[in-house]
Amino acid sequence: MTQAPAAKPPGPTPRNSLEPLFRPRSIAIVGASTDPTNMGLHWLETLTSFQFPGPFYPVNPGFSEIAGLRCYPRLVDIPGPVDYVISCIPASLVPNLIEECIQKEVKLLHLFTGRMAESGEKDRIKMEARIGEQARRGGLRLLGPNCMGLYYPAQNISYSPGFPREAGTVGCFSQSGSITNEIVDKASPRGARFSKVISFGNALDINECDLLEHFAQDPETKVIAIYIEGVKDGRRFLQLLKETTPKKPVLIHKGGHSGAGARAASSHTASLAGDEQIWEALLRQTGAVPAYNADDLADLIIAFLFLPPPRGRRAAVIGGPGGASVQAADDCDLAGLVMPSLSPEIQRQLQEIAPQTAFLLRNPVDTSALSNRTAFPKIVKTVAEWDGIDLLIGLTPDLNRPRDPTSHLENLTHFLELHQHVPNKPMVIVVSSANDGEEWRWRNISEKVARSSAAGIPVYPHVSRAARALSQFCRYHEFLASRNAE
Amino acid sequence: MTQAPAAKPPGPTPRNSLEPLFRPRSIAIVGASTDPTNMGLHWLETLTSFQFPGPFYPVNPGFSEIAGLRCYPRLVDIPGPVDYVISCIPASLVPNLIEECIQKEVKLLHLFTGRMAESGEKDRIKMEARIGEQARRGGLRLLGPNCMGLYYPAQNISYSPGFPREAGTVGCFSQSGSITNEIVDKASPRGARFSKVISFGNALDINECDLLEHFAQDPETKVIAIYIEGVKDGRRFLQLLKETTPKKPVLIHKGGHSGAGARAASSHTASLAGDEQIWEALLRQTGAVPAYNADDLADLIIAFLFLPPPRGRRAAVIGGPGGASVQAADDCDLAGLVMPSLSPEIQRQLQEIAPQTAFLLRNPVDTSALSNRTAFPKIVKTVAEWDGIDLLIGLTPDLNRPRDPTSHLENLTHFLELHQHVPNKPMVIVVSSANDGEEWRWRNISEKVARSSAAGIPVYPHVSRAARALSQFCRYHEFLASRNAE
Repeated sequence: MTQAPAAKPPGPTPRNSLEPLFRPRSIAIVGASTDPTNMGLHWLETLTSFQFPGPFYPVNPGFSEIAGLRCYPRLVDIPGPVDYVISCIPASLVPNLIEECIQKEVKLLHLFTGRMAESGEKDRIKMEARIGEQARRGGLRLLGPNCMGLYYPAQNISYSPGFPREAGTVGCFSQSGSITNEIVDKASPRGARFSKVISFGNALDINECDLLEHFAQDPETKVIAIYIEGVKDGRRFLQLLKETTPKKPVLIHKGGHSGAGARAASSHTASLAGDEQIWEALLRQTGAVPAYNADDLADLIIAFLFLPPPRGRRAAVIGGPGGASVQAADDCDLAGLVMPSLSPEIQRQLQEIAPQTAFLLRNPVDTSALSNRTAFPKIVKTVAEWDGIDLLIGLTPDLNRPRDPTSHLENLTHFLELHQHVPNKPMVIVVSSANDGEEWRWRNISEKVARSSAAGIPVYPHVSRAARALSQFCRYHEFLASRNAE
Repeated sequence: MTQAPAAKPPGPTPRNSLEPLFRPRSIAIVGASTDPTNMGLHWLETLTSFQFPGPFYPVNPGFSEIAGLRCYPRLVDIPGPVDYVISCIPASLVPNLIEECIQKEVKLLHLFTGRMAESGEKDRIKMEARIGEQARRGGLRLLGPNCMGLYYPAQNISYSPGFPREAGTVGCFSQSGSITNEIVDKASPRGARFSKVISFGNALDINECDLLEHFAQDPETKVIAIYIEGVKDGRRFLQLLKETTPKKPVLIHKGGHSGAGARAASSHTASLAGDEQIWEALLRQTGAVPAYNADDLADLIIAFLFLPPPRGRRAAVIGGPGGASVQAADDCDLAGLVMPSLSPEIQRQLQEIAPQTAFLLRNPVDTSALSNRTAFPKIVKTVAEWDGIDLLIGLTPDLNRPRDPTSHLENLTHFLELHQHVPNKPMVIVVSSANDGEEWRWRNISEKVARSSAAGIPVYPHVSRAARALSQFCRYHEFLASRNAE
């Protein structure tokens, strides 16, 4: 770092040692109850289902037992040490809890508690500031307020029972719990697994800079995905981005671009959303990869997670019928990929393989009229191995009835085989979505997505999304190359 | 019409009487076989499953029976009259078939047969022209070549066994069979039903002008949806669009914008795709509604089918959590909708209904922190009935586990109720997609989509798509209003 942190004086815990905070031996959930809509109960159940190995304690003076666990009236009544506390109590009770946390030598207090600065009310803005100061003086680190906290599968910690149990290499931090859910829910069925996901809300203490620094250094994390609404310390964030992107890709979705979006960001996480133009310029400078929404972020995550570095942005699209091929070409063009015509030599080879329908085997390569289906793998291989293309987009046609005589897995199987032969050429597969259709259709789609993901091939529901992700993926590698050329 | 058709001399059948061609008493499928991949067999099975009432005949000299039906060696061997013929034979055999059709007084020959002009081969381009001339001289109308033909549910005719049996009011014509499938498959689970769908391929005889004129006059059709790659007679098409849009919305997806896309359009349907800028300007002049792809077209179809005319483009978004609300505001802004702040009076009313979380009840209206869920319908009603908004976008939150204690249908149920109370305010519902997730999730989503569709409310998988469709819907009504003001 060439520039010292500016905004906040360093607390007693050094800035770059968040990791111990996220590996608690024990957890207390303050404000848990037996009410089925109580979020404290939700955490107890989720820790149980994730088999968190250390003890975890409900705390509430109104109960002696919750979900089969002994409930303590106050945090300080818990006999053993407590490293991590989740607060589900109203904001007005938090100052007292902080005193108890300090007394109990708690390392991290996660404030699910909201209705603080984001309420826009003056006294609550002041209260949030006072709470921050109180914790800082006592050496207590805070996550939040107004957030879902920690998902750390390797430590058996989660705030959602639906998240995968297995750990992976995507590190994610987000100011929104619901968008974090979207990211995990949309990336994990396509093969992404996470090192650690942190929902950090209003960022009163631990903020986007701390988290970026943490993930930059985290050996478990290879790809960093971020959702933020505001940046507390723009200069430090910029500097950290510059330092991080040459080592790890940093994918960022920034919320609150529009006037109404900025107003919503203010009441959501008390963030000053800032100007879109400035933000875009900032990202461009640093080599960070911009995402437009959670779908886009999930699309980028799987590209950066699975694909080998590209040699360029020349793409071939293979396997669709005519109309889909026209659309695919338009989509690739719009995303900034290049669709080269096949060379005379490659055309000659394809003519030999399928003389009747060779006129359809351009780029995109429309294979729908092949009468001899054994030609398909030969065509795919010929195009994929040609050094005139850098990227491969494989289309898998939809079915139009439950059991199609031309097996719905035919194209996919050949693409998976091909992936073994040309592992160093980035390849993605398109399996179009039909989430609101009939069950047999959903089952076919699920099977194709599961197989591709298991083979480590990124899957997209539409060529437009595949092309956009590939283009950003190429842009990042162009950025790396230009840096190395300097 | 102020301008006479220019390109083609009128044939013996008057131009504007396509309807009798699409109501055949009997159908012959020439080139059917028992091979399970044979498309003729596919048509026989599909007509059977659609219970086409008239006789239909397989024709093939190599078989005496196919799919339980007597097979005739030649078309002319069929004893009764044949109105409609589907050709699945190679292009070289078509001239002879045309002679037989003329002899048999067939009204419409649908050429599924491809590899004609789209092959780019000189002799085949000439052959296609000769075939067109031969049919014209004999008074035989042609659909295609190189297309899937007719889906006309009210006449029990379909080329896909998966299409809905029930008829509706969306008329669709498309140069691509696969994109037609996409349109029907993506719009019908969301409640759209079709008067007639026509895949017309290379448009050798019946072309986009004939079809637009047909659907403009068709009393069964209220919304017209089009996919085209090229226009044979631009001046006539422009004139027809101008005449049609004041009476019925015309939604158009044009393929082949990019260089590679135009090349693909050429080998797909022998179309000259033309310049995107000219095309966009043309659409703008005529009041036609542009769509970017099949998803977009499906999104527009359900908006135009279900929504009452809007008073303006001021939108309210209700029902999401914080992050989703920020995203929704950004999406609406990008699409060109206006997100007004709630008036002081409406804010006062919401403050009364939910004093604790009123700071979240802006626009978007974030209802995720409501502790008292009975407040939800009151909030929705207050905002929906406010005359400061013209459009309502209802969000239905995702579940994060199979059985959520807060019922996954809660928001939806209140939106459906509200729809009864304010039927004249356009309302759409967002049910986010999870097509590649777990089965319980897919079931929840399907249920929400089915309920909304049954209630006649358009459903979208993302706010961005809802906002884009609404914005185009508003633009069309702004076009109508500006015309009436002239």
